[in-house]
Amino acid sequence: MLICDIGNSSFHFYDTNNDKNFKLTNINDVQKYSKERVFYINVNDKIKDTINGYNWIDCEPYFDKFSKFKSLGVDRKAVIVASTDSVILDFGTAITVDVVKDGEYKGGYIYAGIFAMRECYKNISERLNYDFNFNVDLNNFPTDTRDAISYGFIEPLYKSVINIKNDYNLPLILTGGGAKDFKSVFTEAAIDELLVFKGILKSLTKSEVI
Amino acid sequence: MLICDIGNSSFHFYDTNNDKNFKLTNINDVQKYSKERVFYINVNDKIKDTINGYNWIDCEPYFDKFSKFKSLGVDRKAVIVASTDSVILDFGTAITVDVVKDGEYKGGYIYAGIFAMRECYKNISERLNYDFNFNVDLNNFPTDTRDAISYGFIEPLYKSVINIKNDYNLPLILTGGGAKDFKSVFTEAAIDELLVFKGILKSLTKSEVI
Repeated sequence: MLICDIGNSSFHFYDTNNDKNFKLTNINDVQKYSKERVFYINVNDKIKDTINGYNWIDCEPYFDKFSKFKSLGVDRKAVIVASTDSVILDFGTAITVDVVKDGEYKGGYIYAGIFAMRECYKNISERLNYDFNFNVDLNNFPTDTRDAISYGFIEPLYKSVINIKNDYNLPLILTGGGAKDFKSVFTEAAIDELLVFKGILKSLTKSEVI
Repeated sequence: MLICDIGNSSFHFYDTNNDKNFKLTNINDVQKYSKERVFYINVNDKIKDTINGYNWIDCEPYFDKFSKFKSLGVDRKAVIVASTDSVILDFGTAITVDVVKDGEYKGGYIYAGIFAMRECYKNISERLNYDFNFNVDLNNFPTDTRDAISYGFIEPLYKSVINIKNDYNLPLILTGGGAKDFKSVFTEAAIDELLVFKGILKSLTKSEVI
């Protein structure tokens, strides 16, 4: 069985038969799977019509409504559904922070993703055109520009997340493409790159679709 | 006497004779002052050559070297020089956070500015294309998308800054164009929109230029 998590910048596939996952960014490569029965979720409105022409099955209707949190993206719903009690950081095009405590979704927020923030600093000034240093020392103020933007991007998020983690007394889980980069920041966190797919499978099972 | 703080998106003038300040964004309007003796600082490399053709006096050489912090922009140096012990938040194209304690500069970092972050979220997805809500409740998780990005932009910075403020036991000062927007976030902070000009004047006086 093939599952696909369609984000704003890539198609992330998971094949349950051989426990393999792969990412495609070129729509022509994705097209090759158009006749297959792929279970998918999608947050990218630009690709919606194209996917509607495929033989794919939209899993969004199988997720609960999360009535208090009206506008929650289906990708966030999936990682939430997959999670036992934890603070979940999903490093995609955006970075989402979500809290599940006592089996209940408590809420979360949307921080900008790695690539988006890199572009953001570059657009402010060419002087801020650097790749982030994920090993920047968060215990001492930075002394050069690269570290000044790395600290500015990473430290506030770190402070916010650790605060939530301590308030709720929960473990941290990192998922999504940028999770590896942030492993050096959230050293105590576990990484689960398949969280979104686990959520989709759980919802499909619960809805007796599979 | 005219002073000008040249940033990445505007020319901010201060006239010491009548204690008035004004912003220009159109270079043709700025050009009208080209023959005057304007004391200026500039962080915008794109405008450097143009300004060199003016009768203006570059104040950067009159600022200390801040040897440990090699790449500190001259605008940050100016607000630091102007400040007594405090955490200074300068809301320009970027948001800079800087700490002065016991008359000594301790360091700081660069967060993205309001306009830059708004563009950043918009570029991630049209679904995130909202103006920020500066009155977003930071004590409860957001329940709609506008608040989810507002919280994501504001709360981590808030947590980081309050942590610094408490660690160093310092008051907060807000300056720069976005200071008014953030007044509802940092309710305990003072606002001083002329801080950068005070720093320039202080450096010029110390160097016996004026």
